[in-house]
Amino acid sequence: MIIDCHGHYTTAPPQLGQYREAQKAALRDDPEHVGEKGTIDISDDELRDSLERNQLRLQRERGLDLTLFSPRASWMEHHVGNEHTSRFWSEQCNDLIRRIFDLYPENFSPVCQLPQSPGASVDSSVRELRRCVEEMGFVGCNLNPDPSGGSWNGPTLADRAFWPLYEALCELDVPAMIHVSATCNPHFHTTGSHYLGSDTTAFMQAMTSGLFRDFPAMRWVIPHGGGAVPYHWGRFKGMGEENAGAGWHTLDEMMANVWFDTCVYHQPGIDLLLEVVPIENVLFASEMVGAVKGVNPDTGEYYDDTRKYVDRAALSDEQRRQVFELNVQRVYPRLKIGA
Amino acid sequence: MIIDCHGHYTTAPPQLGQYREAQKAALRDDPEHVGEKGTIDISDDELRDSLERNQLRLQRERGLDLTLFSPRASWMEHHVGNEHTSRFWSEQCNDLIRRIFDLYPENFSPVCQLPQSPGASVDSSVRELRRCVEEMGFVGCNLNPDPSGGSWNGPTLADRAFWPLYEALCELDVPAMIHVSATCNPHFHTTGSHYLGSDTTAFMQAMTSGLFRDFPAMRWVIPHGGGAVPYHWGRFKGMGEENAGAGWHTLDEMMANVWFDTCVYHQPGIDLLLEVVPIENVLFASEMVGAVKGVNPDTGEYYDDTRKYVDRAALSDEQRRQVFELNVQRVYPRLKIGA
Repeated sequence: MIIDCHGHYTTAPPQLGQYREAQKAALRDDPEHVGEKGTIDISDDELRDSLERNQLRLQRERGLDLTLFSPRASWMEHHVGNEHTSRFWSEQCNDLIRRIFDLYPENFSPVCQLPQSPGASVDSSVRELRRCVEEMGFVGCNLNPDPSGGSWNGPTLADRAFWPLYEALCELDVPAMIHVSATCNPHFHTTGSHYLGSDTTAFMQAMTSGLFRDFPAMRWVIPHGGGAVPYHWGRFKGMGEENAGAGWHTLDEMMANVWFDTCVYHQPGIDLLLEVVPIENVLFASEMVGAVKGVNPDTGEYYDDTRKYVDRAALSDEQRRQVFELNVQRVYPRLKIGA
Repeated sequence: MIIDCHGHYTTAPPQLGQYREAQKAALRDDPEHVGEKGTIDISDDELRDSLERNQLRLQRERGLDLTLFSPRASWMEHHVGNEHTSRFWSEQCNDLIRRIFDLYPENFSPVCQLPQSPGASVDSSVRELRRCVEEMGFVGCNLNPDPSGGSWNGPTLADRAFWPLYEALCELDVPAMIHVSATCNPHFHTTGSHYLGSDTTAFMQAMTSGLFRDFPAMRWVIPHGGGAVPYHWGRFKGMGEENAGAGWHTLDEMMANVWFDTCVYHQPGIDLLLEVVPIENVLFASEMVGAVKGVNPDTGEYYDDTRKYVDRAALSDEQRRQVFELNVQRVYPRLKIGA
């Protein structure tokens, strides 16, 4: 069995985008606009069509069984509007994910976005997490380390502002994938430098703060192969050893709470990831349909068909099964296979 | 011959830090403080001692011949004070580097820092670059893509604000290493997430803007092994191919203007770098004495003794000579060996 722990609903019917545009239009007139949740009229057939032509087709072509599926990451845009904007938008996006789970319970498991908003407390995120996990069967969430969208001017992940959310994650026994959204800072490119830089930044915030001593049961998934971390494994290992007396986590300690996915789109990158990171800390993922949709002209294969890279990696059958299936079941214990 | 293209004077005598503290004290009283360049009283013996016990000792122990030597990167702190602060500080730091070159012309070649300052034009950087290169024999410079120190709120490297500096780099035929300084943003850790994230960010700014079409002769060195770029080579290759029609550089095109150094502190990272990046685009470097000073308990070797990794990499003798010596001579044509 092959479980992809990182897929986003990037192919939603246009009504979802129209809802968002209406939110933005209302905010242009009044930045404090509250509005209401409202409705989005998308039929089951439209949902099916958007998936059958894309994620489901690729799942079948690539021989993947199940995708942990969350709303489109670049559309979370927590920097847009106010906490009401973010709440209604997140609820709508998560409701759609639940409907997809209802339609294809064997192909998708639901992961939610959180209604973070710059300057707002995490209370609304805790509420939405509870709604999704306790009432709708979600198995995890995406947590944005920079809801400002590239200004990096809110509390860090080591700040106590996040404590109520971390307590809920531990109580509900669900992991958080630490995933930024689109950036509105022209210095950064969303799926290039912003995603990868943020992955490294989030990892380092936990490492330098010793955060997991306060939340030993919390589980983080760092997407996109861990940003720059595995490539610079020696740098992080050495810095952790030098600063262990200053309250940092060592790299070994980090591996009790942090997992990396396999969204690395070439063979040497996957080989490095699987060589330096403990096998039990790697979760299979492809993030399709995502940042890189094309075919590599040198190989004739899709860049994001990461299964092929893992298939070819120097792993034992048991290790490959850990990466494809067993690790993700440990990290996402609410995942019910074949439910 | 082995040339290390990336070393900083991280071990200066305390008088240098005292000069900086006096600058900061004056700025506390008056943020607009101009002051004057003044003097720093450090004897040749003190300079020698600071190097003999550190960089020169390690050069000899590791069998390195020459280091391209610049002021301490984390101390550039372009965000401190105003353009006068930055100008006097840069001139002092560069003068010290020149004195080191006078003392050890066979061990060090001088690379300058630039007096960038948030909101100021690059004119003063052009002046200091000319002073260093034309009057003092410098062979390159360090260019900070974020003089704000982690706010990322100035012009990007693709902005025409940088054009006068780029024209000077081309005219003088010197490369720029794109290197940030210390961050004052608590989200980032200077030598961990900030350095690596900035390397990726700078690379992406050039790639998405097609910058080198305007400056086909400009040469950039991206330090720290290129941040996250080589590890995510497939991602960048695929994105470049998808967006070639939108004015981006492809990854192949980038290799006409960009080089990566070997400041990657473990064998698998160096192996990946040398496998995916064209050999002619890799420059040997260790950045000692720098971010990671310790010994890896698993190997008994210094993390930053990158020569050992390159020695062990699967390269032909000719390829190794390219990385150790020939590439850097092409990128830094003002470098006079044994001058």
